[in-house]
Amino acid sequence: LDYQHVQVPFEITLWIMLASLAKIGFHLYNKLPSVVPESCLLIFVGLIMGGIIYGFNDRSPPVMDSDIFFLYLLPPIVLDAGYFMPSRPFFENIGTILLYAVVGTIWNVFGIGFSLYGICQVKAFRLQDVSLLHNLLFGSLIAAVDPVAVLAVFEEIHVNEKLHILVFGESLLNDAVTVVLYKLFRSFCEMPTIKSVDVFAGVGKFFVVGLGGVLVGLSFGFTAAFTTRFTKDIRVIEPLFVFLYSYLSYLTAEMFHLSGIVAIISCAMGMKRYVEANISLKSHTTVKYFMKMWSSVSDTLIFIFLGVSTIGENHEWNWPYICFTVIFCLIWRALGVLVLTFFVNRFHVNTITSKDQFIIAYGGLRGAICFSLVFLLPDFHRKKLFIAATTVVILFTVFVQGMTIRPLVDLLAVKRKRESAPTVGEQIHIRFLDHLLAGIEDISGHWGQYYWKDKLEYFNSKYLQKILLREYDQPKSSIVLLYEKLERKHAIELAQAGQLGHGPAHSSFLSSDRTVITDQKLEDTPNPDVLDNMQEILARNLYRIRRTGPAYNRHTLPGDSEPTERAKEILILRHKSL
Amino acid sequence: LDYQHVQVPFEITLWIMLASLAKIGFHLYNKLPSVVPESCLLIFVGLIMGGIIYGFNDRSPPVMDSDIFFLYLLPPIVLDAGYFMPSRPFFENIGTILLYAVVGTIWNVFGIGFSLYGICQVKAFRLQDVSLLHNLLFGSLIAAVDPVAVLAVFEEIHVNEKLHILVFGESLLNDAVTVVLYKLFRSFCEMPTIKSVDVFAGVGKFFVVGLGGVLVGLSFGFTAAFTTRFTKDIRVIEPLFVFLYSYLSYLTAEMFHLSGIVAIISCAMGMKRYVEANISLKSHTTVKYFMKMWSSVSDTLIFIFLGVSTIGENHEWNWPYICFTVIFCLIWRALGVLVLTFFVNRFHVNTITSKDQFIIAYGGLRGAICFSLVFLLPDFHRKKLFIAATTVVILFTVFVQGMTIRPLVDLLAVKRKRESAPTVGEQIHIRFLDHLLAGIEDISGHWGQYYWKDKLEYFNSKYLQKILLREYDQPKSSIVLLYEKLERKHAIELAQAGQLGHGPAHSSFLSSDRTVITDQKLEDTPNPDVLDNMQEILARNLYRIRRTGPAYNRHTLPGDSEPTERAKEILILRHKSL
Repeated sequence: LDYQHVQVPFEITLWIMLASLAKIGFHLYNKLPSVVPESCLLIFVGLIMGGIIYGFNDRSPPVMDSDIFFLYLLPPIVLDAGYFMPSRPFFENIGTILLYAVVGTIWNVFGIGFSLYGICQVKAFRLQDVSLLHNLLFGSLIAAVDPVAVLAVFEEIHVNEKLHILVFGESLLNDAVTVVLYKLFRSFCEMPTIKSVDVFAGVGKFFVVGLGGVLVGLSFGFTAAFTTRFTKDIRVIEPLFVFLYSYLSYLTAEMFHLSGIVAIISCAMGMKRYVEANISLKSHTTVKYFMKMWSSVSDTLIFIFLGVSTIGENHEWNWPYICFTVIFCLIWRALGVLVLTFFVNRFHVNTITSKDQFIIAYGGLRGAICFSLVFLLPDFHRKKLFIAATTVVILFTVFVQGMTIRPLVDLLAVKRKRESAPTVGEQIHIRFLDHLLAGIEDISGHWGQYYWKDKLEYFNSKYLQKILLREYDQPKSSIVLLYEKLERKHAIELAQAGQLGHGPAHSSFLSSDRTVITDQKLEDTPNPDVLDNMQEILARNLYRIRRTGPAYNRHTLPGDSEPTERAKEILILRHKSL
Repeated sequence: LDYQHVQVPFEITLWIMLASLAKIGFHLYNKLPSVVPESCLLIFVGLIMGGIIYGFNDRSPPVMDSDIFFLYLLPPIVLDAGYFMPSRPFFENIGTILLYAVVGTIWNVFGIGFSLYGICQVKAFRLQDVSLLHNLLFGSLIAAVDPVAVLAVFEEIHVNEKLHILVFGESLLNDAVTVVLYKLFRSFCEMPTIKSVDVFAGVGKFFVVGLGGVLVGLSFGFTAAFTTRFTKDIRVIEPLFVFLYSYLSYLTAEMFHLSGIVAIISCAMGMKRYVEANISLKSHTTVKYFMKMWSSVSDTLIFIFLGVSTIGENHEWNWPYICFTVIFCLIWRALGVLVLTFFVNRFHVNTITSKDQFIIAYGGLRGAICFSLVFLLPDFHRKKLFIAATTVVILFTVFVQGMTIRPLVDLLAVKRKRESAPTVGEQIHIRFLDHLLAGIEDISGHWGQYYWKDKLEYFNSKYLQKILLREYDQPKSSIVLLYEKLERKHAIELAQAGQLGHGPAHSSFLSSDRTVITDQKLEDTPNPDVLDNMQEILARNLYRIRRTGPAYNRHTLPGDSEPTERAKEILILRHKSL
């Protein structure tokens, strides 16, 4: 037996296997996941595993390594989040999200830090040796909302899109603030005196870290898109580039002490559109599938490791400090959301209701990022107290808040996510209004979101698409793409029902058979009735739509479509009539 | 800048990126790969990279780590080989393959070892200090044909299926012999005296290593199939199990000093059938795609690393020894193939022609396995000589033999692979003959391959399928599956041509449009004319085939098909007539 030799890959594989089997196990009992969020169950599995290891070895089980977490477990989840980010609601609310992520996080850090320092002055608690800087350092790591925890809980409760993107977007973008404040306070802790120059440098650094992350991400994203232009003869390695470039963007950002999370999100959002147009359909399926698979495994592993790492003897249980930490986390977040939303609502027509505000405040879950950061702290005599407090805050938010948020959403009747996708009519109207508003903003000289979106679209069609897309000469309107997708689906259904080539389709029969194909939840399909209706309208008008050519755009004239395309069209029609 | 922190993942990602970009680069110039095999080009890239590293650092570039090769680079390639192994020709020629792999390899080891020992006795070469045991040890690592090198060259020259499986199968299965002989001689080198008991133990060990590998592989394969029974609600992690279980089988086998290659191949071949029936279509695409992608990247990395590791100062250039190694490798392999084929041809009707024998002997390429094994040798004063000899043998076989084998195949007019897949008629006849021969063998009491295949099929349908398949009650005949696949493809084509629901298909038009879909080389598609013909026949007779139910099997009665299936059939027909 030569265990030493294969130990590393063997143990990694076994952990992943455990995670996957745990996931299967939960889904076998359908009732359990509807009451308890999966993240809680996984932490519970981790606690049991940790207990077993502790019992057998008689020493603390190995703690989740911060390097493993930041280098290997976090990137797949963030990549998945960025790649499947609904870009419209994200950019519509980018101002609010940034306000919550930047000002909100700073507010929380200083709020929690100063109030905990106040608690430390109470003599009865015997905490006088914890300095203000240490409290602020602790505040900087405990204040940030965790994207992994938020995603795990919010994916199950299906609140409306705006609410979801506000909480989730904040949890992603506050990384830049957390990185800066955490490193700033940590270096302050080690400095003999702090000059005011250092404080200003810290403020400047925030912009460098955030914008630098965006820049690194976008440059890698565009390089990825450019690379996939040349993979036509070797389709099989196409999916690799999506993963390689986004991972490189993360690592590069981390290397330069920029925000890796911001970088990977910009990379994913930047490349998605072009990569999808360049790679084949099967490569695309593989990319989507593997991304979901990887992020789901990473997510599972993180929660299990959280559970395992909780067991052990590296905690100092000073209960007053721990309890006040939990209380202050709740209070300062609630206050922050209230104050910031007050300002946000003054400048917006679509206000954030008080119910939504409550869910935003209540959904501020803490997770593995805090946990990894607290272990990265330099050794000092109260580190174990901070570890204990962080553990309790995470378990409290994930278990208590995570388990009660669903009943609360039901109780408050928070507006839910629309069940069905927008109809074709709605989509056309949305698009029409976009163009209209862009025009109005242009005329009135207001540089709003529609103005910028339109400028970006212009830049995209004029320069980016020509460089990054392999077949630039055939841009297709999204309605034609939708039609093609529907037709493909319809055709597969026909084939499965054995009706192909035997006459026109019976949509009434087919709709009952549709469940066969849509069993994967990867696709966002509208409901079948709307779908049939859409398809009928499109089929009737397809030729005309095709002839109109590329999507309407203020910067291209109608009739710009390629003559070869049109010739092909005529050929098809002639073939049909023969 | 904090490079230390991200060094490991960053450098791994960069190497993979280099490999992928090199692959894209070669395919941009279409002429190059048709003359020089890709493996040669990649070694060349590696040589350049190695030269650059050597030039800048002024010391030998890092050598490919044997652990990295055996634990991370080799498994994906072997898994891919096992998963896509054409099982029919493999099992039809299993006897010949085993003869080449076991007896042939032993023959080569002792032949090369003893003749090199003879060379060492020539005083002029100053090699008298290399003992017989060391020569045999060297023989054991240089004798084995390398699956990675063979695959890289043979995939490009398209020789007939039997020839391909003989060389490729040998290269895979000789792993067990190599492992045993290499470890045996290495332990003999360290022993003071060798008893005859040790020699017999070595012979017994061969069976343990080979059969143990098969056993480990099959048990993991069946566990994998069993696990995928329960993934219906969580499709997204299905592909993971295929990779996890096969990797575990490899690691477990390596842990117990069994043959990891044999284990992973048995695992892949054992699970394929059941896993494919259990997982969804998209999961299946992802599995196939990712396997191909991973193996192609591993393959690329291995050849690049081979090139990089060649540069440096760890060679001892004793040219007589090196040249005689190359010559003996060629001579003993040629002799071995001649002698063994003589015996094989006496017992077979389908003989191996002398042209085929030449290609088998000439296709015995050496590769990265020898290279890794020579670096794993214990330190002794002539290790650098062995490294130099191995490097030259590998470069000679890959460059000289790899580049000349294609012209030789053309020159000798070796029988090529059939361009088209067998027609439906042929397939039906093959299957009919299988049953007939199984019956004849059963009556005549001859335990031949058809007898065993039939018994295995019985065992499979009676026990294995019930345990391992989720929906056991709907086994489909392969002809129905083929029809479904054709119909699905046809439907997608119709949808792309915009002809769906507008009347019956025009197959003449469609066949010209077919290239759109079949651009991925993952699918083995027959040529379009045969396909159309097949589809027409199938469409006409589909109802009848469906009613006949599951595939004909000696152990199930016709008419065993499920009544619910039949009811559904009638429902579809009624719907159509409405």
